[in-house]
Amino acid sequence: MTRREFGVAALGSVLAAQARGLAAAQPAAALRVNGQRLNDHLTALSAFGRNPQGGVSRVAYSDADKAGRAAVMDWMRAASLDPSIDAAGNIVGRRAGSAALKPLVFGSHIDSVPEGGNYDGDVGSLGAIEVAQTLAERSVTLRHPIEVTIWSNEEGGLYGSRAWSGQLEGSELANVSSSGKTIADGIRFIGGDPSQLGRVKRAKGDIAGYFELHIEQGGILDAAGTNIGIVEGIVGIQQWDVTVTGFANHAGTTPMDQRHDALLSAARFIDMVNRVVRSVPGRQVGTVGRIQALPGAPNVIPGEVRCTLELRDLDDAKVAQLYSTIRDEATKIGAENQTTFAFRSLHVNVSAPSDPKMRAIISDAARSLGLSTRVMPSGAGHDAQAIAQLGPMGMIFIPSVGGISHSPKEFSRPEDIVNGANVLLAAVVAADRTL
Amino acid sequence: MTRREFGVAALGSVLAAQARGLAAAQPAAALRVNGQRLNDHLTALSAFGRNPQGGVSRVAYSDADKAGRAAVMDWMRAASLDPSIDAAGNIVGRRAGSAALKPLVFGSHIDSVPEGGNYDGDVGSLGAIEVAQTLAERSVTLRHPIEVTIWSNEEGGLYGSRAWSGQLEGSELANVSSSGKTIADGIRFIGGDPSQLGRVKRAKGDIAGYFELHIEQGGILDAAGTNIGIVEGIVGIQQWDVTVTGFANHAGTTPMDQRHDALLSAARFIDMVNRVVRSVPGRQVGTVGRIQALPGAPNVIPGEVRCTLELRDLDDAKVAQLYSTIRDEATKIGAENQTTFAFRSLHVNVSAPSDPKMRAIISDAARSLGLSTRVMPSGAGHDAQAIAQLGPMGMIFIPSVGGISHSPKEFSRPEDIVNGANVLLAAVVAADRTL
Repeated sequence: MTRREFGVAALGSVLAAQARGLAAAQPAAALRVNGQRLNDHLTALSAFGRNPQGGVSRVAYSDADKAGRAAVMDWMRAASLDPSIDAAGNIVGRRAGSAALKPLVFGSHIDSVPEGGNYDGDVGSLGAIEVAQTLAERSVTLRHPIEVTIWSNEEGGLYGSRAWSGQLEGSELANVSSSGKTIADGIRFIGGDPSQLGRVKRAKGDIAGYFELHIEQGGILDAAGTNIGIVEGIVGIQQWDVTVTGFANHAGTTPMDQRHDALLSAARFIDMVNRVVRSVPGRQVGTVGRIQALPGAPNVIPGEVRCTLELRDLDDAKVAQLYSTIRDEATKIGAENQTTFAFRSLHVNVSAPSDPKMRAIISDAARSLGLSTRVMPSGAGHDAQAIAQLGPMGMIFIPSVGGISHSPKEFSRPEDIVNGANVLLAAVVAADRTL
Repeated sequence: MTRREFGVAALGSVLAAQARGLAAAQPAAALRVNGQRLNDHLTALSAFGRNPQGGVSRVAYSDADKAGRAAVMDWMRAASLDPSIDAAGNIVGRRAGSAALKPLVFGSHIDSVPEGGNYDGDVGSLGAIEVAQTLAERSVTLRHPIEVTIWSNEEGGLYGSRAWSGQLEGSELANVSSSGKTIADGIRFIGGDPSQLGRVKRAKGDIAGYFELHIEQGGILDAAGTNIGIVEGIVGIQQWDVTVTGFANHAGTTPMDQRHDALLSAARFIDMVNRVVRSVPGRQVGTVGRIQALPGAPNVIPGEVRCTLELRDLDDAKVAQLYSTIRDEATKIGAENQTTFAFRSLHVNVSAPSDPKMRAIISDAARSLGLSTRVMPSGAGHDAQAIAQLGPMGMIFIPSVGGISHSPKEFSRPEDIVNGANVLLAAVVAADRTL
């Protein structure tokens, strides 16, 4: 018996046990996604915002994002989902259930970082649509209504999903996104209405549960040869805009000891952040990913530098302690060089444990398909982190080859993508029965 | 006798001594520029590319640069100069002389750095036109033809004047200027023809001499209360594009000890440049003024950083030694962090001493006007540096209040501007007699 055949047989028996909860028309033993169609959709989506050197730059609110979202809505319609765009710009595709229950929600995002890859978000988004299409084609009506969600601007800071959880502050609408648009303008650009965000907010208990399929983005599953990761929790993420203020002056006529060089202070800040984050044991990470020096000419001493700071850990208290140390050190660096530092919170995602019931459902689903599993934290933030505020959350990881992500070199194997989608399918069916 | 009256009388006697070389119609005692008109022209020019917070962003080849140049050509016509645009985009306004001699050349530039001020280049450009207009209005025809030059793209690296001196390499035409255009596209945009640069090249001896009036840009004259700086030489300037290559990856899933963070290496590079430049005695300066991290998102480890390096000193050998040390140190920084450094020369200006005859002419002119003087180096580069290759060069500095330049806060007092233009006028008249 091949592993694949074992998986089929195992899922068959699981489904047989579930038969009382499902429509009679269901041919249980063959309930699998169409892997070819799923991978074809991934290829088709990769055309929107494709970089010359591979991967995509489909940042939220860009023309490429808007065009990709239109394609996704077409695929939802083909999957018997009735898609609409909510006030936060999320695409929500609905299909009714047989009972008066809260919806089972599953999905991901299709926006990318600048010069990103074709798997982060896309696998979970198109995997969720594929699960819905498989259910519809097999005439399986679940007890719960289903909602397939494509969250808006995940990479910028979970904007769409945080609108659902009520964690999106009105003041954040003025933030400038990677597209160059403010969040408010961006939401309008993709068909949302930032003045009506209160209408998308849901309360705890408004959903039966949430699943998200995603690539790992780290190299643990790939290195160990494990098929499926079961996420135990998502790290907390905090981001700040950091502004260093000095004084712009002529780079030829201003002596070295009379400069207020904002970029020199910023450079010492970046080195210090690395040192502070590595100074304590643990898996915490700290990153400065964006920087701009003003006015930005080779022959002018920079008078201002704007950069970002990001800190992540499963323990939110550790993030707070690191930030406190970094601020103290930045004040010292600024004073040595006649410059000042200012920090503005860009956004905060608290850490989010997954639900034990959902982990068990995913674990059973993977094992029923003959797939190996590993329980692991998520170093990356996900929309699941926000939606965990509303109901039980579970996340399914598939391997990222070489642990490369947020890069055109990001890659997940087609067979791993199909495995992930089949685990999602089985988990949704199982959750429909047990939640 | 006021200082101003003393100046008038002194210039009168100088001019009387020169009378045999000048047209008979000249009313020598009153040969002074129209200071009100000069300052009005400076105010008018400040409208082109004005920043909301003051100063201008009239970078070379921008729409503002093009519009400002059109205004300058109108003022040249009013000054009986016959302006045209040469292949390198320089504006050259000519007026014939009474003898078959090489031209006396004087001028400056009107392009600015991003977020620059209203005096750097503008004072010397409009001062030169004012000198020509004064001569024309007083029906003074010099023996030498005069050429008033508005050099193109001074701030980007003396592109227009280096085309005259033959120091502009064809390969530099592909460099990207602050306007976003390549040098070739920029030259075309302002009316030049980059395919015909050879036609503007002049040989040593093709000019009788070159004067340039300019603001000091440092604080020496202002602090000392001195009216006029006589430049002994211009520092050599070398600029490089520096590329740091690492590997872009996810900022949440990539542990601190597995990163190839290009921005961390760039930060250590910036701090090291400051340390190396300050490690030896002298007036040398080193600056990193521009930086970009790619892909440039808060949640992505930068895979590439592009920045600039600039070094200046009167001693070109010292610049070479500093650069050699910086390259060695950069290699070490790169290796510690699994990143690599690459340097590409952006442009090179060798240091240029001024001509002793020209310094004496300027000194006599200033003293004849009752103005105090100081001999000093120029820490800033100037078009005079390139034109010194073609004939005797002299530069006249006026005070910069507080030593602030390349900034919207750059300021020179109207009376100092008029003093400078009158020194230029007297120097041109004296040089016409003696060169």
